[in-house]
Amino acid sequence: PVAVLKAPKVWGALRGRGHGFYAIHTYFFKSINRTEIQDFPRFAHRGLLLDTSRHFLPIKVILANLEAMAWNKFNVFHWHIVDDPSFPYMSRTFPQLSQQGAYHPYTHVYTPSDVKMIIEFARLRGIRVVSEFDTPGHTQSWGKGECGDLLTPCYSGASPSGSFGPVNPILNTTYDFMAMFFKEVSTVFPDAYIHLGGDEVDFSCWKSNPDIQKFMAQQGFGTDYSKLESFYIQRLLDIVTTTNKGYMIWQEVFDNGVKLKSDTVVHVWMGNKFEEELQKVTEAGFTTILSAPWYLDYISYGQDWQKYYKVEPLIFNGTDAQKKLVVGGEACLWGEYVDATNLTPRLWPRASAVGERLWSDKDVKDTNDAYSRLTKHRCRMVQRGIPAEPLFTGYCAHEYKGV
Amino acid sequence: PVAVLKAPKVWGALRGRGHGFYAIHTYFFKSINRTEIQDFPRFAHRGLLLDTSRHFLPIKVILANLEAMAWNKFNVFHWHIVDDPSFPYMSRTFPQLSQQGAYHPYTHVYTPSDVKMIIEFARLRGIRVVSEFDTPGHTQSWGKGECGDLLTPCYSGASPSGSFGPVNPILNTTYDFMAMFFKEVSTVFPDAYIHLGGDEVDFSCWKSNPDIQKFMAQQGFGTDYSKLESFYIQRLLDIVTTTNKGYMIWQEVFDNGVKLKSDTVVHVWMGNKFEEELQKVTEAGFTTILSAPWYLDYISYGQDWQKYYKVEPLIFNGTDAQKKLVVGGEACLWGEYVDATNLTPRLWPRASAVGERLWSDKDVKDTNDAYSRLTKHRCRMVQRGIPAEPLFTGYCAHEYKGV
Repeated sequence: PVAVLKAPKVWGALRGRGHGFYAIHTYFFKSINRTEIQDFPRFAHRGLLLDTSRHFLPIKVILANLEAMAWNKFNVFHWHIVDDPSFPYMSRTFPQLSQQGAYHPYTHVYTPSDVKMIIEFARLRGIRVVSEFDTPGHTQSWGKGECGDLLTPCYSGASPSGSFGPVNPILNTTYDFMAMFFKEVSTVFPDAYIHLGGDEVDFSCWKSNPDIQKFMAQQGFGTDYSKLESFYIQRLLDIVTTTNKGYMIWQEVFDNGVKLKSDTVVHVWMGNKFEEELQKVTEAGFTTILSAPWYLDYISYGQDWQKYYKVEPLIFNGTDAQKKLVVGGEACLWGEYVDATNLTPRLWPRASAVGERLWSDKDVKDTNDAYSRLTKHRCRMVQRGIPAEPLFTGYCAHEYKGV
Repeated sequence: PVAVLKAPKVWGALRGRGHGFYAIHTYFFKSINRTEIQDFPRFAHRGLLLDTSRHFLPIKVILANLEAMAWNKFNVFHWHIVDDPSFPYMSRTFPQLSQQGAYHPYTHVYTPSDVKMIIEFARLRGIRVVSEFDTPGHTQSWGKGECGDLLTPCYSGASPSGSFGPVNPILNTTYDFMAMFFKEVSTVFPDAYIHLGGDEVDFSCWKSNPDIQKFMAQQGFGTDYSKLESFYIQRLLDIVTTTNKGYMIWQEVFDNGVKLKSDTVVHVWMGNKFEEELQKVTEAGFTTILSAPWYLDYISYGQDWQKYYKVEPLIFNGTDAQKKLVVGGEACLWGEYVDATNLTPRLWPRASAVGERLWSDKDVKDTNDAYSRLTKHRCRMVQRGIPAEPLFTGYCAHEYKGV
């Protein structure tokens, strides 16, 4: 009884140890004298997005889910670490960002050593940590600690309304700040990529501000605020390029015609017509990853894992070369209604369906077969202490012991 | 600083200690020298149904949620203890029922001492335990251990198909069994009421069986199988009457015209027109409780607690006397997709909204105000170890520590 595990790189060997759908269990070996299993991923990028801004996720919860990610053959933790509601990332360069912008400056922050621990814990499981510091929108929490002029003052008629909009793209101080901030981020997070966000920029505040209006006129942007967004993003991209990182951005940055470096990864998340978007993005020659059909925060009654499972990422019209540009996808669990109390059961085994889709061959799509494997797999997770919720009526030999 | 707690019965005083929406906190007393709070429930029956058949719920999970029920002013635990998928109730009289019918005869059963503990734990918190042994439908798991002729053999053409339908209502042995079984149940569960079920009886198997057809003809029932259902239920009610228990039944028993004792409690659960049903049931003079709008197993994205909160149980057309017959309601968390991994966060604080609706005055209906109280209340639950899920973006000073 011998099993040989070969892999071209150490990460593949790690994955071979994994206990995903196709897990090799020690007790299987009892009746197997020789076995040859060829197993390799269909897509290189198999990610999971967790959001630690809308709710703070304790380290323990993140580590437990990294462990579960490894069992489900995910290899990228997309850490959507800050956003409008809170700024839990403790920056060495700008400590006031979390001091003012976190829900609580001591109990609801990720210290440098917390971040280090998470990255190392992930690395030992073959998981990359891609951090996202989303700008210029989704930055309300940045404004609390960065007491200067980072965010755009919104106007109500002729005077400031007291509220603030996206990052202010017309001030040099903004770019000085971003240069210093992303220099830090690029050293803290060793991954070759940074996710720069760029989604859902609300133009109404920019439109209300007379200084912005004047700047638009000077630049010859007319009233096309996506040109202003483009202006900001292009300068940001130049800054991040100096750190020698590659970058990912949400699809609007591409949709709005921002000039991108050729190796940019475009992250497709919007609506139902993801096929058209993939077609456009790859036609333009960009590498892309898909999340649109895998927003796990949208819950519904019953077995919604089937819906996630049935997605075929390469169904769009395009050449073989275009299809090769789809390097993978990510399941996203946004945090509006999710924190440590319900994240883990809401994530597993629903995300497992995405994990198999991104790992397995296109032809592996029998939902009945997947159901029976997934049922066993979720019991394995439960036995190991991960409260993965049931797919349907039934039981596990070893039920979850916690509450 | 003195607070006086008065109540006509001990249960009211227990409730006064409770920590529901209106919880009196010790730190509140710092600035209060005298206080007079008049607080009493609008409805006497404030129940929560948990289902231990579709998934087995460990004792620990049941106890934790009884505790949370007390904090949310619930006073009835409707224990839907057995159903089609499994029979976890360990009967002293018929041990083979759980031996054969439970998911596992040792690890997935409630022993007599487990049941006793749950009842006593509930009693100390002012919570009644109303057990439900649903017949004649929802009884597949009964058939495994009761090897006689308890269930109706279904026919495919002229010969038995090998599958079984509802309880067989034409055999005397059925009633002998039920008499012994409910005699035991009536002593195990001290509450004055038993829930007898009676919902969703599928007539197709009865229709297929030639013996049943013959019996129908003899009795002059024609082809009206609801008369056969009525025949069964009436004999069952006579049996339970001899145990000196009152009983509750699901609405179909009333809808199908089964003759009921005048003190029967009709449990309204179906569809959207619960107002019409309440009108009919109370017009016929029956006491009733409402669950229809409070099926918490149906989940959706966002703040569905508001929907539960906005229900007004007495909105139907009827006299004051009719409205007095609505003695309360129950939130139901059926177990198809729920077990120990996800029950508690799925239940709280969504059920809290039902708890307040059943406790508070009709005029207490400001959802903004409820939101702010409920947000604090859920953080209190979290601090005490109950993983109540978040209502929306935000944080608790003391986040949930488990995974």
